[in-house]
Amino acid sequence: MPEQPELTIQGWGPAGPDADGQAGGGADLEAAVPRTARRYLAKELGWSPRPTPPVAVADIRLGPSRLTEEARTALVDLLGAENVHTDRESRLRRAGGKSYLDLLRRREGDASDAPDAVVAPGTTEETAALLSACSELGVVVVPFGGGTSVVGGLAGIDPDDRPSVAVDLGRMASVQALDLPSSLVTVGPGLRGPALEQALAAEGLTFGHLPQSWEFATLGGYAATRSAGQSSTGVGRFGDLVAGLTLATPSGVLELGHPPASAAGPDLLGLALGSEGILGVITELRLRVRPKPPVSSYEGWSFRTWPAGLAAIQQLARHDLLPDVVRLSDQDETRATLLMASGARMLRTTLRTRGHGEGCLLVVGWEGLPTMVRARMQSAASLLRDGGGHRLGRRVGESWKRHRFQAPYLRDTLMDAGLLVETLETAATWSALPTVYDAVRRALRESLTRDGRRPLVMSHLSHGYPTGASLYVTVVADRDDALPIQQWLGAKRAATDALLGAGGTLTHHHAVGAVHRPWLEREVGPLGVEVLRAVKQRLDPQGICNPGVLLPD
Amino acid sequence: MPEQPELTIQGWGPAGPDADGQAGGGADLEAAVPRTARRYLAKELGWSPRPTPPVAVADIRLGPSRLTEEARTALVDLLGAENVHTDRESRLRRAGGKSYLDLLRRREGDASDAPDAVVAPGTTEETAALLSACSELGVVVVPFGGGTSVVGGLAGIDPDDRPSVAVDLGRMASVQALDLPSSLVTVGPGLRGPALEQALAAEGLTFGHLPQSWEFATLGGYAATRSAGQSSTGVGRFGDLVAGLTLATPSGVLELGHPPASAAGPDLLGLALGSEGILGVITELRLRVRPKPPVSSYEGWSFRTWPAGLAAIQQLARHDLLPDVVRLSDQDETRATLLMASGARMLRTTLRTRGHGEGCLLVVGWEGLPTMVRARMQSAASLLRDGGGHRLGRRVGESWKRHRFQAPYLRDTLMDAGLLVETLETAATWSALPTVYDAVRRALRESLTRDGRRPLVMSHLSHGYPTGASLYVTVVADRDDALPIQQWLGAKRAATDALLGAGGTLTHHHAVGAVHRPWLEREVGPLGVEVLRAVKQRLDPQGICNPGVLLPD
Repeated sequence: MPEQPELTIQGWGPAGPDADGQAGGGADLEAAVPRTARRYLAKELGWSPRPTPPVAVADIRLGPSRLTEEARTALVDLLGAENVHTDRESRLRRAGGKSYLDLLRRREGDASDAPDAVVAPGTTEETAALLSACSELGVVVVPFGGGTSVVGGLAGIDPDDRPSVAVDLGRMASVQALDLPSSLVTVGPGLRGPALEQALAAEGLTFGHLPQSWEFATLGGYAATRSAGQSSTGVGRFGDLVAGLTLATPSGVLELGHPPASAAGPDLLGLALGSEGILGVITELRLRVRPKPPVSSYEGWSFRTWPAGLAAIQQLARHDLLPDVVRLSDQDETRATLLMASGARMLRTTLRTRGHGEGCLLVVGWEGLPTMVRARMQSAASLLRDGGGHRLGRRVGESWKRHRFQAPYLRDTLMDAGLLVETLETAATWSALPTVYDAVRRALRESLTRDGRRPLVMSHLSHGYPTGASLYVTVVADRDDALPIQQWLGAKRAATDALLGAGGTLTHHHAVGAVHRPWLEREVGPLGVEVLRAVKQRLDPQGICNPGVLLPD
Repeated sequence: MPEQPELTIQGWGPAGPDADGQAGGGADLEAAVPRTARRYLAKELGWSPRPTPPVAVADIRLGPSRLTEEARTALVDLLGAENVHTDRESRLRRAGGKSYLDLLRRREGDASDAPDAVVAPGTTEETAALLSACSELGVVVVPFGGGTSVVGGLAGIDPDDRPSVAVDLGRMASVQALDLPSSLVTVGPGLRGPALEQALAAEGLTFGHLPQSWEFATLGGYAATRSAGQSSTGVGRFGDLVAGLTLATPSGVLELGHPPASAAGPDLLGLALGSEGILGVITELRLRVRPKPPVSSYEGWSFRTWPAGLAAIQQLARHDLLPDVVRLSDQDETRATLLMASGARMLRTTLRTRGHGEGCLLVVGWEGLPTMVRARMQSAASLLRDGGGHRLGRRVGESWKRHRFQAPYLRDTLMDAGLLVETLETAATWSALPTVYDAVRRALRESLTRDGRRPLVMSHLSHGYPTGASLYVTVVADRDDALPIQQWLGAKRAATDALLGAGGTLTHHHAVGAVHRPWLEREVGPLGVEVLRAVKQRLDPQGICNPGVLLPD
């Protein structure tokens, strides 16, 4: 089993050997952002680059553990002393996730949301016993996988303010079985993508779920949040790849899913997917794998306008010709991408001569058998050309692929220099998508424009479906150093109200967490919330399972 | 809106103008079954063809309606007198479904399972009001779409023996809206496939869900039972094509599903799909449509053995090359198919000369854009040949397509001549499928072999998935005229125990109904059943919604 490095406490990337003793995880601004891009940002945003480093990790404030001695003893009896931790570093590392607000808090030295202890069960049975014990002891349980949530999925906010433990799934991180004829692999929830791919590669297989958090997020976390990855247009959303799972709850263990398919009543597996820890802890997953594709071809295209690009992709979707990866950047994101790319001067010239100088970049990726990739690419190219697309070739596609996991690292650098950087996402039908796009941009601009500051709002379509597509939005703005949290909360509120009002979904792949839960009722209706409450009440009558997320108060 | 003909009361096919006054819906045995096939059946089964006609419809026994005058008045106040029926024919037409046991009962003149009244709401609001009223009145509600259930989905068995009404959805059977860019159509639950296809054809679109019950089943019924159709390997199971639906419950109305995709909590749409009426009534559906495929190509292949055929299809599945339609018949089904086909002599000769004389027939169907169909067919053909397949050409494929909806008609004829005819189905991973196949066949043979009788058990793989496939089994045997119901119940029990024991699912596409509910706990576990009960309790606290199905007592 390969090593699974821990995340740094105040930002993104693998933790240093000295528990992040260094202040400021980000790389140097000058090294990370070309001069033209820095100038562009300064001008667009009204931003003066300035050092705003995080406090030293040693200075992060953390209260004493509130776990009672009785509870600690019970947990040690269950799991052994080596799997129950109340030390500062263990607790700090499981505090919150990696949203902009999480990072702001951690950089300011606030870890008041850290769990009171960290426990690490090794099996489904141990996890079930742990949940049952915590239910009796009145101890809140927050499952901890990779800690990469960007929606406050680890907030651990309990209305009754009971002590909480993070259930670290790192001990359940192995590949347990491979059923080769059925293309099924059984894994522990704490396993991450890189380790899974490494194990599968030995058999000529791949799993292929590649969200931006791929290096650190866990498979159990993907299941709990209904994740989508960069290749999900082709291989399917994470939920499509789950053939079954085991969910330990305070009331017992559920074995869900019956591959390849069943009509035996409602889909209970679909209740566990996206349950975000409120029903229990996922302790095992059966996942669909596939042969490693012999051919992989990524290329760039450009469109004169955003609507033209959308229309062309909609045509691909309609004719079942969507690529495995499809990402259409709007004009603002395209401009920023070109400014950030070293050596993109030739590309900019090409685009200008084609009249696409202020256009939209599209990255498409195809994977599979050579005959099939060729046929799909040819048929799709014809539709893209009909839609006004201009083929830019492989260099653009390969460059995107090379940098696909870089954005979260860059965020640390930008935050070190006084910037607000956050993303949000939604999805809508093809009919509603243009309205959603306009509404979100307008809301963010209105909320974040004040005192000479203006935000940069960059969007891309990140996943295509026959019925619609997702929209991924990156916001950069000069940070309000006095009230940075309020600055973002206001913008997020405005954007969420706007996208829901225009017909978008609350979240396409980041989940609900603590951040989105005030809006859940607008998404599923009051009776939908009541159905979820009834399920939770049955499985978790004491309400100890991740009480701060998903369900509104 | 095209006419939607009603089903005959005692069998399959459109009802006659005189309310099925004629006895025996089936065609003449000699006309329907070639002589060689009749001889083969007589010899294999120990069967003596004999007339066993149904009683005349006029002689079917039906008790008086138990609906109280208070309840009737309340329903008339809600829906109008023209939408509340207690007459004999209305009740008879909504009695039970079309399983072998349903037909046995109806043919013997027993309609004790008929509802006490038939009501027909016209809108979601009326349906919600109806459910709320019935909840207060203590009246059981059984949703009625096409009445084609083969698992007792309309059994209406109430432990408290309250009066029951069938909620006929025939008034909610229109195409309400078409969102062309998003490939979405909004329909009423009472609409059937042929009418939907007719409406879509005008726009160059198709829906493409084609189960054997296509002529009579409704879209709401497909949703309530998690149906799969003959082309589901390609276009997806019915559930995959539902973007959203409206579910009226005694506690209010749920609007579920947010196309194209969402990560906003657990999948509540998946709870409504397959709920079989126990949570309420589906009153509207938003379905995914697609352009009518310009190319459609069906062809036959043969394999020397069942395992060779399975292995070849598994290779297609593994490499994402499954056809839109894939049906591999085992040797017993292949032999019967060839005996039934007029003009198959040449085909039989071809197979013998290839050494496939006792082999397995495979039908594959491809639909889509010409380039893509060509590429898929070529790549697949290469794998099928590698697996020992011999291409028989289009005639076999087209012939299957022509007769794709015929089997239920033939069943009436065979039942008229003293035969037991029933089907069952399951699905399993590729690893488990051979064991499931053997186990089911053995169980049926052991149960149905006695007193010189032997069953004919014919199977085919009917849907392929990357992780496994479904198995569809047709059983024909000489009927035990003294105890026909017990004869089948024993065989069904043995087959179900066997397939679950070997790792199959309780049902791949027929649903649970009254027939399978004793086994639901084996499929989802006791806690899984409890979760469903908790949801039902919240939405249907008085337990009026289709109490006889899905959940065990």
